[in-house]
Amino acid sequence: MNSVLCLGLDPDPAALPPGFGPDIDGVEAFARLVLDAALPYAAAVKPNLAFYEAFGARGLAALERLRAAIPADVPVLMDAKRGDIGSTAARQAMAIVGALGADAVTLNPYLGRDAGEPFLALPDVFLYFVCRTSNPAAGEVQGIAVPADDSQGWPTEPLYARMARVMIGWAGGDRLGFVVGATAPVELVALRSLAPDRAFLVPGIGAQGGDLNAALRHGPARAGAAGSHPGGGLLVNVSRGISGAANDLPDGAPRHAIEDRLREAAARWASKMPVLSLPRA
Amino acid sequence: MNSVLCLGLDPDPAALPPGFGPDIDGVEAFARLVLDAALPYAAAVKPNLAFYEAFGARGLAALERLRAAIPADVPVLMDAKRGDIGSTAARQAMAIVGALGADAVTLNPYLGRDAGEPFLALPDVFLYFVCRTSNPAAGEVQGIAVPADDSQGWPTEPLYARMARVMIGWAGGDRLGFVVGATAPVELVALRSLAPDRAFLVPGIGAQGGDLNAALRHGPARAGAAGSHPGGGLLVNVSRGISGAANDLPDGAPRHAIEDRLREAAARWASKMPVLSLPRA
Repeated sequence: MNSVLCLGLDPDPAALPPGFGPDIDGVEAFARLVLDAALPYAAAVKPNLAFYEAFGARGLAALERLRAAIPADVPVLMDAKRGDIGSTAARQAMAIVGALGADAVTLNPYLGRDAGEPFLALPDVFLYFVCRTSNPAAGEVQGIAVPADDSQGWPTEPLYARMARVMIGWAGGDRLGFVVGATAPVELVALRSLAPDRAFLVPGIGAQGGDLNAALRHGPARAGAAGSHPGGGLLVNVSRGISGAANDLPDGAPRHAIEDRLREAAARWASKMPVLSLPRA
Repeated sequence: MNSVLCLGLDPDPAALPPGFGPDIDGVEAFARLVLDAALPYAAAVKPNLAFYEAFGARGLAALERLRAAIPADVPVLMDAKRGDIGSTAARQAMAIVGALGADAVTLNPYLGRDAGEPFLALPDVFLYFVCRTSNPAAGEVQGIAVPADDSQGWPTEPLYARMARVMIGWAGGDRLGFVVGATAPVELVALRSLAPDRAFLVPGIGAQGGDLNAALRHGPARAGAAGSHPGGGLLVNVSRGISGAANDLPDGAPRHAIEDRLREAAARWASKMPVLSLPRA
């Protein structure tokens, strides 16, 4: 797995290939097949909790089984985007790291550092705070102009940049990276410049139409602990670009034909995003 | 239930009264007892999902049973603070409204309007977006100074105020209120002035030390649909202030003694926060 591919594991029950029913059994069986086919090409796996929670307790039980099926040497990043006051964040850490065995988690920084501290109190958990997301409406909040209170020569900066600077001040820096969408390549370049030592998780490649070249060029950290990791601590997520690869097969297509398509898609994406040797800052 | 009391239902397994074990069975049994004792005094019930998710799928199953035990005429507000891109938010809506039967939900606005739209697409669901939260670190992000781009005569405004103004521009206004912590009374007054027609959910009373008088005086909406609701659409949440009321009872205390304490605490809090007739704007 000499790539920076992060395998998104969030099957939409309305978009499963032939032979999988739109219920939790179909979703779990298909997610298992995606894992079997694509895991050899993935540097990490990222289930999105909502796609399991949508089926209630039975869905969460399915996610627990899927997580248990992922080998211990593959990092599991639970995409949860939680963020709450300290007493609640402590229970979220128990849910996501304790019950679901996450190696890393996505969090939302709007409530401030309180959202992350209980996760940092657990050993070895990595935190990705959303900074500039990949969705169409992201800019309306994350792009709010804020006075630049330093002397970089600009009168204002966008909120996502200020958020990055605020988060750089938080404890636990070596275990605290940012989510930066590939659909916002200009913002990604700006954030890399602002935070040369931070690990980036970059979603938005594939179905969302993000800019892979920008992600590969500016996504790797250039300094610090992340900068010395293979690939500069970068993870580039692909979900629907892999899980949707067999959706055009005809009804009655055999399971192995579906698995072949998934494997080919994962191999193709992984080959597009190799781990490169990078110049260090 | 002639009060604006919102009954927080998020038992900490480490702080249960005597006779309840620190596992999901103890938490579920205690939450059931809190419901039985306090429901007559509550205008709404607010479970915090993390306190159940901390026990994995078994915890979520317990929350499903608790929700089913709440009568249909009592609004259930699921405290989830979710916020994600549209395709994920659609699955969150299925999880929280579909699987958990929420009448209302708390959301995080950092990703923009995409976070709420799938919830608004479902009939009758009310959304509370966090605006100014009750935690100690809230100000470091929510208090960032932003240029006031209107002509109110102030050069800057805090981010929470700008967020309120951004959210006032979102569709679904009659079903979109704000979370404003009682620990920030000055901010609460400012937000009420900015958004006279919005329903407020006010946490932070009790264990967090918030200002109940400020919540009661400035929490009710003065205009719009919320302003014409009893209590001005205000809900004031108390969690630990009720659930902790029996924690000093000795080991071996009978169940009815615990229930009496919970009932007395709920009655006391409810009597402090009556539904008042308010002048309309």
